[in-house]
Amino acid sequence: MLTDDTGLDAAVWRDPSRDPVDRVEDLLARMTLAEKVAQLYGVWIGADPTDSGEVAPFQHELIDPLDWDRLLPLGLGQITRPFGTAPIDAAVGARQLAVIQAEVVAAGRFGIPAVAHEECLNGFTSLGATIFPSPLAWGAAFDPALVERMATMIGETMRGLGIHQGLAPVLDVTRDPRWGRTEETIGEDPYLVATVGTAYVRGLETAGIIATLKHFAGYSGSRAGRNFGPVGVGPREFADVFLPPFELAVRDGGARSVMHSYAELDGVPAAAHEGLLTGILRDTWGFTGTVVADYFGVTFLHNSHHVAADRGDAARLALRAGVDVELPTVQCFGAPLLAALDAGAVDEALIDRAARRVLRQKCELGLLDPQWTPTATTAERIDLDPPAGRALARQLAEASVVLLANDGTLPLRPDATVAVTGPFADDPHAMLGCYTFPRHVGIHHEGTPIGVEIPTLLDALRAELPQVTTTAWSADVRVVVLGDHSGLFGAGTSGEGSDAADLRLPGDQERVLLDALADGTPTVLVLLSGRPYALGAYADRLAAIVQAYFPGEEGGPAVAGVLSGRVNPSGRSPVSVPRTPGGQPYTYLAPALAHASPVSTVDPTPLFPFGHGLSYTSFAWDDVELSSPTCPTDGEVTLSVRVRNTGARAGSEVVQLYLHDPVAQVTRPVTRLIGYAKVALAPQEAVTVAFTVHADLSSFTGLAGHRVVEPGELELRLCASSSEVRHTVRLDLTGEERTVDHTRRMTTPVAYSAAA
Amino acid sequence: MLTDDTGLDAAVWRDPSRDPVDRVEDLLARMTLAEKVAQLYGVWIGADPTDSGEVAPFQHELIDPLDWDRLLPLGLGQITRPFGTAPIDAAVGARQLAVIQAEVVAAGRFGIPAVAHEECLNGFTSLGATIFPSPLAWGAAFDPALVERMATMIGETMRGLGIHQGLAPVLDVTRDPRWGRTEETIGEDPYLVATVGTAYVRGLETAGIIATLKHFAGYSGSRAGRNFGPVGVGPREFADVFLPPFELAVRDGGARSVMHSYAELDGVPAAAHEGLLTGILRDTWGFTGTVVADYFGVTFLHNSHHVAADRGDAARLALRAGVDVELPTVQCFGAPLLAALDAGAVDEALIDRAARRVLRQKCELGLLDPQWTPTATTAERIDLDPPAGRALARQLAEASVVLLANDGTLPLRPDATVAVTGPFADDPHAMLGCYTFPRHVGIHHEGTPIGVEIPTLLDALRAELPQVTTTAWSADVRVVVLGDHSGLFGAGTSGEGSDAADLRLPGDQERVLLDALADGTPTVLVLLSGRPYALGAYADRLAAIVQAYFPGEEGGPAVAGVLSGRVNPSGRSPVSVPRTPGGQPYTYLAPALAHASPVSTVDPTPLFPFGHGLSYTSFAWDDVELSSPTCPTDGEVTLSVRVRNTGARAGSEVVQLYLHDPVAQVTRPVTRLIGYAKVALAPQEAVTVAFTVHADLSSFTGLAGHRVVEPGELELRLCASSSEVRHTVRLDLTGEERTVDHTRRMTTPVAYSAAA
Repeated sequence: MLTDDTGLDAAVWRDPSRDPVDRVEDLLARMTLAEKVAQLYGVWIGADPTDSGEVAPFQHELIDPLDWDRLLPLGLGQITRPFGTAPIDAAVGARQLAVIQAEVVAAGRFGIPAVAHEECLNGFTSLGATIFPSPLAWGAAFDPALVERMATMIGETMRGLGIHQGLAPVLDVTRDPRWGRTEETIGEDPYLVATVGTAYVRGLETAGIIATLKHFAGYSGSRAGRNFGPVGVGPREFADVFLPPFELAVRDGGARSVMHSYAELDGVPAAAHEGLLTGILRDTWGFTGTVVADYFGVTFLHNSHHVAADRGDAARLALRAGVDVELPTVQCFGAPLLAALDAGAVDEALIDRAARRVLRQKCELGLLDPQWTPTATTAERIDLDPPAGRALARQLAEASVVLLANDGTLPLRPDATVAVTGPFADDPHAMLGCYTFPRHVGIHHEGTPIGVEIPTLLDALRAELPQVTTTAWSADVRVVVLGDHSGLFGAGTSGEGSDAADLRLPGDQERVLLDALADGTPTVLVLLSGRPYALGAYADRLAAIVQAYFPGEEGGPAVAGVLSGRVNPSGRSPVSVPRTPGGQPYTYLAPALAHASPVSTVDPTPLFPFGHGLSYTSFAWDDVELSSPTCPTDGEVTLSVRVRNTGARAGSEVVQLYLHDPVAQVTRPVTRLIGYAKVALAPQEAVTVAFTVHADLSSFTGLAGHRVVEPGELELRLCASSSEVRHTVRLDLTGEERTVDHTRRMTTPVAYSAAA
Repeated sequence: MLTDDTGLDAAVWRDPSRDPVDRVEDLLARMTLAEKVAQLYGVWIGADPTDSGEVAPFQHELIDPLDWDRLLPLGLGQITRPFGTAPIDAAVGARQLAVIQAEVVAAGRFGIPAVAHEECLNGFTSLGATIFPSPLAWGAAFDPALVERMATMIGETMRGLGIHQGLAPVLDVTRDPRWGRTEETIGEDPYLVATVGTAYVRGLETAGIIATLKHFAGYSGSRAGRNFGPVGVGPREFADVFLPPFELAVRDGGARSVMHSYAELDGVPAAAHEGLLTGILRDTWGFTGTVVADYFGVTFLHNSHHVAADRGDAARLALRAGVDVELPTVQCFGAPLLAALDAGAVDEALIDRAARRVLRQKCELGLLDPQWTPTATTAERIDLDPPAGRALARQLAEASVVLLANDGTLPLRPDATVAVTGPFADDPHAMLGCYTFPRHVGIHHEGTPIGVEIPTLLDALRAELPQVTTTAWSADVRVVVLGDHSGLFGAGTSGEGSDAADLRLPGDQERVLLDALADGTPTVLVLLSGRPYALGAYADRLAAIVQAYFPGEEGGPAVAGVLSGRVNPSGRSPVSVPRTPGGQPYTYLAPALAHASPVSTVDPTPLFPFGHGLSYTSFAWDDVELSSPTCPTDGEVTLSVRVRNTGARAGSEVVQLYLHDPVAQVTRPVTRLIGYAKVALAPQEAVTVAFTVHADLSSFTGLAGHRVVEPGELELRLCASSSEVRHTVRLDLTGEERTVDHTRRMTTPVAYSAAA
């Protein structure tokens, strides 16, 4: 296939010492239109668990059969999920990926390998890889550094197997917890999502993996929380709630890829939204990476959103808006696009624009270099769940368990007899969110099933406490374990497409709980769930409530540790826990009239507010100091508070800083998070937590539609939750109203210093 | 108080033969700033039921005490609800209003009376006036001409009592039926709301009463259907769903006043929204009337929305946006505004602008003329519920009853024994929506209680059918009467502030219904309610379902007539009737992905769709003719269908025309109403119904943000409901995309012609 015009031997594009811009331009000039187009899509490769070395495109009901032999000589932009489609051992997957890449390189004129991408929502999504807690649990941990360590570990694992890009993190902000993908979000506060999500991005990118921000943008705001539903938000709410996590992850986190959302924004599907994918993302934020399609999202412009007449038209709309790569496979960006180009319906400059971005990224990854070779492994088996992974999964799980309520029953007395009941007490699946492979029973290696061990909560409690049973109705304490199974499109009660009509406990779990409460035994409710559920009808009768979301492979021991007291809980709720099942949507981040008011009989006040969580020790907050009572609209002040562990055991406190803006030119949330710090303290130990508060943190999208800092009075609230205020200080912003760039808004340095 | 500069004797402003513009300018030039400001607010007058002739401002917890003697010499813009505050006889009210007006005229330098306004949501809101069906019932009637007759009658009644302005109609489009004010809306389709609402406007204005469009705009889109909650809609949805009824009522209906909504739009409260109150309303639509505040809405800018620092600041924001008159009383537009003017914080030109509009309207009403005198009545008693009112209330009620389901049990056999049960079977209150005075027990005239007679459903059934009881458990048929009590802020289950968390039957009515179903007696459910309720759990076990909303004072006989068969039902549901209580919001007017889809487990498909309703006769639809299969983007076609009554009794059919746009530049509702005609047919009679379909009817707000007609394929669907398609014809729009003005979009002339 080689011809002279590839310049394979001596051309600029092939020379690692040359400027990447020059290399890409040189390469583009040598490519045919069809070769450029071939860089703009992925192909879903079917993993073969038998390790035969045979490779073929994955068959799926939504995927047209592909002619692999005709396709490959043009080159290939991406390889889709070489590990994740079927449960295979990682060593098999890595060998197969190398075979595929060798085929891609051998078949094309230019010998350019594909970018291989995989899912990594809460761990590398491959059989046997460490399953970390799911994103809501990251939010609950209030500990970005821990999440960054996790992401670095995930990234290093993927990089070692020949993968270049990971389709995470999800930066959607929870707006309606009925949405099945709530479990994939970090929480309902944009500041929390932005800071924790950007930490994940840094970890992945530090390991050399391209982080992919998704789903850009607005997906979580769909009507009634139904998946793919229309998103009805105004431009100001969109800018102030949905966009900040993406902005921080691009500008501060250095994410190199962005995936569009499936949903439409006021009539314009994100995949066809030029103002979003080009205007905001590139022109305003300066993003230079690639925009990839959510799976089948380009085709959906035609057959779901009905804004494209056919697949070629869908390709045109997506390219024009700024989608560079169609995933998971070629549907619109192949023959339909070539036909549309041939008919003059698509500007060839759009192809060059997208191909330039893809090839620039391949250049930076070394994929244009002569010395590139596929990542090789000869290992018969690769352990993707080493002790360090387990330990980190445990650490994050323990940090994320939220003790919502406790009448003193917890921690359990060592001599108490404990009955453990409920459908999820002995179910490993209940620990796991979407995009995970639990131990797969069909695949063995030397007689051992492949896949990670997942102790159930019952397993873990038995290991921790001698007096545990599922049968003792005369127990001193009962532990009822309820929640969700995560599964797609109704295969579970949470997860993509598994939406809820209201926030009642799923299925017959209300009955299970009421039955458990009937005999008066002190009852601890443990929830392993992908969304908050309404608990107002039972809370008064429960001895304690433990919310663990999906805590991952070490979730059983983590929750058991909280129950036994081995672990002092330090999680804080990343979402509001509702009192009643109806009245949705509600989140805390809203102006006054979205909350309880005398003008509506429906009181949406949550049972437990955003940021709430208890500990087994106690903390005193004092010595509050503000560096100055006034601050220019372009200045900053420092607010500090001393926190002392006043109890008898070690524990971690989460100091939360909220902003209340009494009067503004547009309505503002009553209170919103602008900083937080989690501090671990030995008994009687104290630290001073200092927040640097730049005036930019008070900024919002003003009447004129751009972000401003407005002079006037503010309240800074040091809080234990969004509604539990410990100290309030007044700060007056002085000077002129100021238009601000977004960059500095989310960065709140936090300093700890040992105190006397 | 008279001084020479008023020009009372000979000035231009006082001369009815002069041009109104000149008169107003002359008057403005003579007024002090304080006198101009005094024209910009109302005062709520306390009605005195004892007919003492004493007048004083009404006391209310939200109203500051007023110094009437100091206030009045400045003049007065409006008098608030002289009849409606306390239940008084209309003759007493009219005399008191005349006394007040005489005081206003005598006290001010210029002797200008106030504009007197009253509520008239579903009839003149005064004790003893005819109580018509509430707006949802108007929507169900699908008969604008009947609504116009009603409004003319209401307006003539008010005009005869000295009232100038009526605070109706409500043109909010139902978006989430959990909202308590759903009962005040005409339905969930903007075309239906626009056409029926504009008919109401025409009726009121024909009678000489200023119609007041409310609540401008977006109020019904509040989050979770909670009253006053933030409205999260994009600009395109706002333009295409919320605005059209207001636009038609201004441009085609000639409404002379608009009331702002309480809610905020994407952070900007409507009362402070210059783009809405001035940009859209005046600059785009050419509105020249007055914008009045919803009660206390200016103050709410300060104490609810927190966008104003104090009341003077609230006045500044409201005036700047385009609010001309503060209602119901002076709170911000009085002393706080004068202080702000004095401090230079408010531009005096804003005062002139608002005063000019108010005085122009007073000029047109004759209130500046020398010969003006208060409307006098010496009658001891005025009958506001004459036989003609009763007859029209009956006619509209009968036309609005919707037979949702019927297994043949209805009409009831004359010899059937019928047990009538349920909490609303014998309750006159259940017939009435908000803003009504039922017969008031405390007020008598010559021994007779004042107030209209309201037969209950039981009363009416007993009068109509001999075999009715509340006690016969061995009856052949059971009629269970459920629904709402309308009442404010929780005094009822529907009405302003009486929002719902979900669409479950209120209170313990589910249990009442299930008890009734237990013994297997064929059961007819009658709903007298202010919103649709979820009936999916019971529908299969019910013999029939009759939905009557709030049918007014003649609702009992109207519903009884449907049950007995005296009335052949012809109402069509103006809202979707949900299958399940959760999953809100949902209305039919939405793009594909808002409806049932394979990507969400929550199926929002209603139990009964928008536009659904059964009859006791049958109709055949045939001979469909389209004048041309193509149409230019600025042209029109005629679509006709012959409808024949194929049954044995007379009845009315509602021919509904919907538009389906298969591919558009933005997502479009799957189907939407663009025309309808209700035709009454004797047995075997046939008519041809012809719709003139202008291409403008297909217009929508396009990608660029303005309204366009897009060339391409359309489907015109002749339907018996939004989901029951009888005939589909394809129409190809040809030519260039065209930007269109809005005017013609909603006007669909319908012609009937007798057929062979």
